[in-house]
Amino acid sequence: MVVTIVGIGLIGGSMAISLQENGFAKKVIGVDASSEHEKKAIRRYLIDEAMSLKKAVQQSDVIIVATPVDVMLKVLPEVLDLITDKQVVLDVGSTKERLLEALKEHPNRKRLVATHPMAGTEYSGPEAAIPNLFTGKYTVIVDKEDSAADAVQIAEQLYQSIEMKIAYLDAKAHDEHTAYVSHISHISSFALALTVLEKEKNDSKIFELASSGFGSTVRLAKSSPDMWVPIFRQNRDNVMTILDEYISTLSQFRTMLIKKDYDSFYKKIEEANQIRKIIS
Amino acid sequence: MVVTIVGIGLIGGSMAISLQENGFAKKVIGVDASSEHEKKAIRRYLIDEAMSLKKAVQQSDVIIVATPVDVMLKVLPEVLDLITDKQVVLDVGSTKERLLEALKEHPNRKRLVATHPMAGTEYSGPEAAIPNLFTGKYTVIVDKEDSAADAVQIAEQLYQSIEMKIAYLDAKAHDEHTAYVSHISHISSFALALTVLEKEKNDSKIFELASSGFGSTVRLAKSSPDMWVPIFRQNRDNVMTILDEYISTLSQFRTMLIKKDYDSFYKKIEEANQIRKIIS
Repeated sequence: MVVTIVGIGLIGGSMAISLQENGFAKKVIGVDASSEHEKKAIRRYLIDEAMSLKKAVQQSDVIIVATPVDVMLKVLPEVLDLITDKQVVLDVGSTKERLLEALKEHPNRKRLVATHPMAGTEYSGPEAAIPNLFTGKYTVIVDKEDSAADAVQIAEQLYQSIEMKIAYLDAKAHDEHTAYVSHISHISSFALALTVLEKEKNDSKIFELASSGFGSTVRLAKSSPDMWVPIFRQNRDNVMTILDEYISTLSQFRTMLIKKDYDSFYKKIEEANQIRKIIS
Repeated sequence: MVVTIVGIGLIGGSMAISLQENGFAKKVIGVDASSEHEKKAIRRYLIDEAMSLKKAVQQSDVIIVATPVDVMLKVLPEVLDLITDKQVVLDVGSTKERLLEALKEHPNRKRLVATHPMAGTEYSGPEAAIPNLFTGKYTVIVDKEDSAADAVQIAEQLYQSIEMKIAYLDAKAHDEHTAYVSHISHISSFALALTVLEKEKNDSKIFELASSGFGSTVRLAKSSPDMWVPIFRQNRDNVMTILDEYISTLSQFRTMLIKKDYDSFYKKIEEANQIRKIIS
């Protein structure tokens, strides 16, 4: 198949690598707002060539839109305007409710399969693209019944070809789930980085001693605001709910410290340890 | 040298492996409150033999105390009571002010070198001991001037033998630094685990989709309360200060979401990204 990838960053670029390696794509065309990104993507052999959106869509079987989610609101209607009913469009965005609401009246809506491969790193841009980013992880297909059966089948084949497991959710459940298992982690990490960076202004040696545990909890704080602000904006209500719960849990720890209630502190940590059963 | 390690867990056990491998210790004796731990440590070849504290100290050149920090308050005076002025005692605890205050009048205080190797994982017990845990990381020697010069020298040789870099801090600075670069990360992670586990009670499938980013931020939530509650207890004031700053930073994010002030949110993430310069 000929595959166009719109947005050749971490996700789009990694997908380009995997789909070429496994033969799903006989050709990968890249479309990016930045010509610098397009050049880098060609130099790194992520894509075969770069061209305008219109030209690229005309010669593609599958179009994958992998831009930040705010850009998707603009690009996806354009892509759907350009396609025939033989072509399939996939978006890979981290939020779904707002996007699918905006597209629901589009005459070609059924050619779009809304998906979310749950994989990533804290890096961005074509230089962040890596092989095997998706292997063994879950992808979500959202509101499957709003897409044509043949389009869903091609999306499933594509994700199976890069060895992803597939889950099915509606848009509302998807956005709530991802707020819990992805979006809140990022806010937690941004805030931790800011707290310690503030201290560093007066104490430049503090990071020498940073433990690997600290590195692990602030890793996500390297993530790009261009990707994340649109996600928090589109998933604001869910993120706010969980941020409230998170702050409330931290405040409980604070109260226990104030009261020197170390027995309750111990029990809370034991409860938190239950995460062992879930995260290997 | 003959080395006794009191407390054969993650740190004590990993140190046993490294000191045997590099020949610093010609014999390692283990002392543990749990005979089960002692048996495991022998089976895993972490220690040559296990015996009572008194017998072990009598035949050792160096005694390393690697128990949880509450136990140190009891064990370290016992060890110092037993030694001659040819022997060296090292503690490897994560908090220092309270411990060193409690020991400051002990007649053998100068034989103790207070140290903190900044290394670890979220696991505990002798089964958690691993080779090369310390390689390339920092260890802190605390209140160096309160220890005899020859004792400090042996501590330095020991840490250099396991390829650690050495930093020197006083107890107050040490406890404040570690609160920032280690202790707060753990509270952040425990609270995140609790928030998501609470949600899971009503939605058992939520973790299927957990991203690797989520795994990274909650990894530390697997850490043992037996180790961590005593640390939070002994470092309560520093931890409370930083927890307040952390909650306040999170509340700023919350306010920006309420006000839909995404420009400020963007700037805050850009600021947090500065952590890139510091954590590789």
